[in-house]
Amino acid sequence: MDEKQTEIAQLGEFGLIEHLTKDLHVHNNEFTLKGVGDDCAVLEYSESEVLVSTDLLLEGIHFDLTYVPLKHLGYKAAIVNFSDIYAMNGTPRQITVSLGISKRFTVEHIEALYSGIRLACEIYGVDLVGGDTTSSRSGLVISITCIGNAQKDKIVYRNGAKDTDLICVSGDLGAAYMGLQLLEREKIASVGQADFHPEFEGKEYIIERQLKPEARKDIIEELDKAGIIPTSMIDISDGLSSELMHICKQSNTGCRIYEERIPIDYQTAIMAEELNMNLVTAALNGGEDYELLFTVPLHQHDTVEKLSGIKIIGHMTGSNLGCAMITRDGTEMELKAQGWNHLS
Amino acid sequence: MDEKQTEIAQLGEFGLIEHLTKDLHVHNNEFTLKGVGDDCAVLEYSESEVLVSTDLLLEGIHFDLTYVPLKHLGYKAAIVNFSDIYAMNGTPRQITVSLGISKRFTVEHIEALYSGIRLACEIYGVDLVGGDTTSSRSGLVISITCIGNAQKDKIVYRNGAKDTDLICVSGDLGAAYMGLQLLEREKIASVGQADFHPEFEGKEYIIERQLKPEARKDIIEELDKAGIIPTSMIDISDGLSSELMHICKQSNTGCRIYEERIPIDYQTAIMAEELNMNLVTAALNGGEDYELLFTVPLHQHDTVEKLSGIKIIGHMTGSNLGCAMITRDGTEMELKAQGWNHLS
Repeated sequence: MDEKQTEIAQLGEFGLIEHLTKDLHVHNNEFTLKGVGDDCAVLEYSESEVLVSTDLLLEGIHFDLTYVPLKHLGYKAAIVNFSDIYAMNGTPRQITVSLGISKRFTVEHIEALYSGIRLACEIYGVDLVGGDTTSSRSGLVISITCIGNAQKDKIVYRNGAKDTDLICVSGDLGAAYMGLQLLEREKIASVGQADFHPEFEGKEYIIERQLKPEARKDIIEELDKAGIIPTSMIDISDGLSSELMHICKQSNTGCRIYEERIPIDYQTAIMAEELNMNLVTAALNGGEDYELLFTVPLHQHDTVEKLSGIKIIGHMTGSNLGCAMITRDGTEMELKAQGWNHLS
Repeated sequence: MDEKQTEIAQLGEFGLIEHLTKDLHVHNNEFTLKGVGDDCAVLEYSESEVLVSTDLLLEGIHFDLTYVPLKHLGYKAAIVNFSDIYAMNGTPRQITVSLGISKRFTVEHIEALYSGIRLACEIYGVDLVGGDTTSSRSGLVISITCIGNAQKDKIVYRNGAKDTDLICVSGDLGAAYMGLQLLEREKIASVGQADFHPEFEGKEYIIERQLKPEARKDIIEELDKAGIIPTSMIDISDGLSSELMHICKQSNTGCRIYEERIPIDYQTAIMAEELNMNLVTAALNGGEDYELLFTVPLHQHDTVEKLSGIKIIGHMTGSNLGCAMITRDGTEMELKAQGWNHLS
């Protein structure tokens, strides 16, 4: 590293917090009365319901700083939480950020992490209103809680799907997972090489999906404009298969999705080919897509079909029929909620 | 360990969450519409402002499982967060709990931790509404976010003290810190001894203050009944000295407190004597008291003096006079915000 690095001990805990938050003004929305600087943040939600979600990210489990830049990590850590609020058909408004920092991190490292978090906040109109900072004995700990809001009659839960509803998904699937595989491959290839250049050409999309995902604010706005309130919704963090089974379980339905309808980007397909991996498995179980999976009533078929970035991939059924995918050759394959952690 | 221990891998992440939350009904207050089980919890705060606070606790930094039982740890982790809400003159209503769990913990361990959290929730009328559970490479990580509420005109910040206000503190100080010293002493004494019995007789109070602190809900209620809204308030987690300086800085005042007025329990005094430590230093800088430090206008002197469990320890001054303690012999000693972490 060429740039000047400042040890965190030079500032101390209070000094670090002051340094990180000194030009932090809460101004991104009108739901924040008071941000960082007291025992609590103060929020104003008299006109709507409050949504709360939280995520804990640990170094060595959720991220590998060998190939994840700290700014990207901060951005992604925030996005992941925004995504949970959108998945309820709400809008994220505030986050709190708690960090556990081990000795190998400098003030500049934490500034980089924070700059990613703040960038995400600015883009999505969210205020950073509080947190906790402490030393850690082992690696970086990031705990983010997101608070948002929604009108009571517009909140979408996981349990509202009916057995004739259409199953829809935004964007495309499996790309973040294939991006991770690529990053892991290049990490291994780089071992012991001083002047290593990873091969990412033509694979920018899957790398970006892994390192800098976005939350689907645009889809929530699009649905709202079209007058559609999904009957159920969830964001895809653990893989389509797992999330769809959550909805089916809580809605007491079964489902049928069609392999040929699952949206997959061509870079994802090429990467799977190159690594000799099953593409559909990656799309079904590869996590971290942060796309929205939702159901709408059958009669809204024509409205939904016209929307961009949304694909109808199947339909709900009675719970007695179970959860299955119809493959290209017409076979029924039972869905399994293995989740992405168990893939590797 | 004699009792049956179940490996967490047997249940998996989803299984563990389901196991821990299966009989968890949100019922402790009317501000929770939906708890665990969706992408977000849903809360209802149309009649008041929302308060949010968060704390990150890491094994090896904030707690030592050699002498801290997991149930106590859970209780304390919750209490610490409730305390922040009371410090704004609010009422805690919900918490989210995120856990990072390393391999040496079993399902029964996490049940014990959870039972402490849930006990605290029941006693204080708080709902456990969400969280995240993940594996950790190194020790236990506990991240709790607390949400509460208060009427807008009753919220007390750190910055409202006037230069003639009285400085008040609840309970007594330094006991948790001396309890920690005792536990550390016995831990060292126990090394290599199979049948070790720690000497805690006559020291139960300071042990309890360290292992099972309470948040001062009662003080908030007492002040409310007496019609007192403090001009500023903070809870004492890092030590009286440090917290008082936060209030002075944010209120732009100085202060004078009197050594002879600082409330100290006799067990704290005996322990300090035994360990040959400075008692006043422990009371000023020993952390984790979770008492409330607040200021009230001078004209409320007689009302405050009558309240039980509250002591007037000094008064605010103009900021030009700085922050100082008047010792028993009449000397002015400048206050320093060293915080408890730097004591040991």
